[in-house]
Amino acid sequence: MNFKMMGQFVAKILGVEAAFMLPALLMSLFCGESAAARGFLGALAAIAVVELILVSSCRNAQRGFHEKEGLVSVGVGWVVLSLLGCLPFYLSGAIPSYVDAFFEIVSGFTTTGASILPEVESLPRSILYWRSFSHWLGGMGVLVFLLAIAPAEGSDGFTMHLLRAESPGPSVGKLVPRMKKTASILYLIYIALTVLNVLFLLVGGMPLFDSVCTALGTAGTGGFGIKNDSIAGYSPYLQNVTTIFMFLFGVNFSCYYLLLLKDFRSVFRDEELRLYLGLAACSIGAIALNIRSLYETWEETVRHSAFQVATVMTTTGYATTDFDLWPSFSKTLLLCLMVVGASAGSTGGGLKVGRLMLLVKGLRRNIRQLLNPRKVEVVRNNGTAVDEKILANTNAYLAAYVLIIFGVFAVISLDGFSTGTNFSAVLACFNNIGPGLEAVGPTCNFSAYSPLSKLVLSWAMLAGRLEIFPILVLFSGSTWKRR
Amino acid sequence: MNFKMMGQFVAKILGVEAAFMLPALLMSLFCGESAAARGFLGALAAIAVVELILVSSCRNAQRGFHEKEGLVSVGVGWVVLSLLGCLPFYLSGAIPSYVDAFFEIVSGFTTTGASILPEVESLPRSILYWRSFSHWLGGMGVLVFLLAIAPAEGSDGFTMHLLRAESPGPSVGKLVPRMKKTASILYLIYIALTVLNVLFLLVGGMPLFDSVCTALGTAGTGGFGIKNDSIAGYSPYLQNVTTIFMFLFGVNFSCYYLLLLKDFRSVFRDEELRLYLGLAACSIGAIALNIRSLYETWEETVRHSAFQVATVMTTTGYATTDFDLWPSFSKTLLLCLMVVGASAGSTGGGLKVGRLMLLVKGLRRNIRQLLNPRKVEVVRNNGTAVDEKILANTNAYLAAYVLIIFGVFAVISLDGFSTGTNFSAVLACFNNIGPGLEAVGPTCNFSAYSPLSKLVLSWAMLAGRLEIFPILVLFSGSTWKRR
Repeated sequence: MNFKMMGQFVAKILGVEAAFMLPALLMSLFCGESAAARGFLGALAAIAVVELILVSSCRNAQRGFHEKEGLVSVGVGWVVLSLLGCLPFYLSGAIPSYVDAFFEIVSGFTTTGASILPEVESLPRSILYWRSFSHWLGGMGVLVFLLAIAPAEGSDGFTMHLLRAESPGPSVGKLVPRMKKTASILYLIYIALTVLNVLFLLVGGMPLFDSVCTALGTAGTGGFGIKNDSIAGYSPYLQNVTTIFMFLFGVNFSCYYLLLLKDFRSVFRDEELRLYLGLAACSIGAIALNIRSLYETWEETVRHSAFQVATVMTTTGYATTDFDLWPSFSKTLLLCLMVVGASAGSTGGGLKVGRLMLLVKGLRRNIRQLLNPRKVEVVRNNGTAVDEKILANTNAYLAAYVLIIFGVFAVISLDGFSTGTNFSAVLACFNNIGPGLEAVGPTCNFSAYSPLSKLVLSWAMLAGRLEIFPILVLFSGSTWKRR
Repeated sequence: MNFKMMGQFVAKILGVEAAFMLPALLMSLFCGESAAARGFLGALAAIAVVELILVSSCRNAQRGFHEKEGLVSVGVGWVVLSLLGCLPFYLSGAIPSYVDAFFEIVSGFTTTGASILPEVESLPRSILYWRSFSHWLGGMGVLVFLLAIAPAEGSDGFTMHLLRAESPGPSVGKLVPRMKKTASILYLIYIALTVLNVLFLLVGGMPLFDSVCTALGTAGTGGFGIKNDSIAGYSPYLQNVTTIFMFLFGVNFSCYYLLLLKDFRSVFRDEELRLYLGLAACSIGAIALNIRSLYETWEETVRHSAFQVATVMTTTGYATTDFDLWPSFSKTLLLCLMVVGASAGSTGGGLKVGRLMLLVKGLRRNIRQLLNPRKVEVVRNNGTAVDEKILANTNAYLAAYVLIIFGVFAVISLDGFSTGTNFSAVLACFNNIGPGLEAVGPTCNFSAYSPLSKLVLSWAMLAGRLEIFPILVLFSGSTWKRR
């Protein structure tokens, strides 16, 4: 392990975090929220101290940055980011327990949106802003941001390892050959869509502060609301705007890049996009039929169905209604969509539509080969053959995914909640969704779990956001050996 | 597809079924159970008609029997076996609905033990015997039996394809090179252990009929009881005997073969056996600590803990206590053990301990290769390298396993039961266990589900018993094309 190089990276990540904390600090001073201001100042001081230690001890790093360093840096970087990023909550007294504050910021950065707060409307506005902003930063990824602003160094292997470790989905880097350019384009599309979302909300009469926070949470597919009833209190227009933007942020961002290049044909034919939209449309229809009797008009029924499908499938976690009261079939469909998740290369979580597609295609090939063992067949995606290594990795990913779900499920069951609560809590955290069912349903929160369960669920959120391996390697003995 | 060859096979399977139905018919006549006798006679007549049609239409079959024919024959064979095997229940009036009778016999042959009967003590004894016997026949497999008694034909590829399709676990055929000999040895060990089980139960004072039926259900790891309270009414000695034999039938039978060869060293070092026993011991300990306050003495606590771990892990499904009343942690551990299941090459179901081991080892290799991409590494089991094809198949198996669980979960949720009920019902059927939690817990039954759900759950039981692929290929278009 090249520890010095890793230290330099973590220092840079903390620099980004400090830079983004400044607007929140200014807001707290401007609004006269003295407790919040103390929290932000304390956090910035702590970051400065850690930064100083890292910079002074990690000078003269040898070059040499491989897959291993990329994976480990991302894992360590996100943990440190969260350990220090939760200080404003804790030091301002908004969240009196450090473990709770850590859970809350991990939930923010991983765009989960699971909260331990029973109510949020009494919190200082600057704290609410930082909470929503953590979604935005975590959605596209802090390292991707770092790459977008870093000076081009010409060593693309170096940056690709980082980008690959932080970005969702089975494959990365098909956009453009240069990684720095990729990162910049991703962030520009991300910013443009976020601004567009704010504008649409403003047009509907939502106040500026609400619009910005809601859009930040939508863009990162996070789900922290600034109202106790999430989005339920806003007008149907604002709910529909949020539905549409949730779906937009769940699309693979390379589709937007292709749209910029006016390559409409490739976008139209993209198999993942078709499956994503098809699954969404079918689920909205099935659930609308199932819940029709609960609402007065078809408009209301479809609006709630579409909103909840969007929030679960893109793993955002906003709510306009308590879907825990819906019939069993609708709840089960939502649980299945929680596992499927959004598209690869989007800001959403879950297993990813693209990965599901590869699993199904691989399985179909496997069955055909059982029937005709001598026939050699490749799996194709959008017409081109998929590398066998990606298929093998996708299968290994599923194995890790299932093992982690059952492991976390067993640990948090020690707290004594019901099977449905625990299972949906694991799925909601690990897939970065937010609310689950029953005692962690849309109108409830995670505060009743023990500190141990909160830490384990935080770990699951990180593992889910970083797609497991950057977090798993932190537990491998060979990671920490000096080369 | 060689349809005529397949027809001949199905005819042979039905011959075995008819032969084994004769003792039940004699019992019904001997006990003066006229309704049951009518049921068995009707079923035998129906089998004879189907047999006649198959034999007359499938003469002059071309030779040529490949993987494809092996897989499809096993799938079709089991379906036909169940369609006709449920006739005694239906024609005798013991189960008035044909769908319910089909569910019950599929549950029997697949050694699941999930029942739609609210009470069993009023049923004719010959019907109870046939119900328990279906576990025994399904446990080791009807095709394996056919191979054991069939004349040696010298074409081992022919028989191996069948054995491979019906036997549980990722690999088959390591016992002895000759398949007919393998099948005979498997059945001899199976019969010897069953007889031993009956003797131990008789020594404890259990009546002969009860002993035989209980041992048949234990041997096949099935779980149909002949008492309404399953095993709870028997003495602690009889419960402990059943616990021990459940664990014994969950061991890979090749270990017993090695014991016969006096190769104790290989048995002692067998990694799957160690993991199986280790998992069982840890789970018994953890659950005993968790439920200590519910029982009066340590003896009672450990007895119930060990029995329930055995019944769930070996996927038998007997019960001595209602574990749905246990604390959440114990219930969750049991749910996890449901998924793990018994050893490969045993009569138990589930994912199998050996397959779990391969998944974990493959995952660890994957992580090490992420850290050192240039290092080539093989996965080893008991010291020898595992074929990459088996690893790939194991991963594909997991993908199919997860997809089927969520698919069935969604369909049966239409009936409106709770998430915990539905999820545990899917796990209990697909892993061939029997009882689940909540509304399908140990003191309840599956009768409240709709006919559609019962058929889908029957399908899941067959898919679970035959390890998915022989059932999945029945839905593949290329299976039914003439070559």
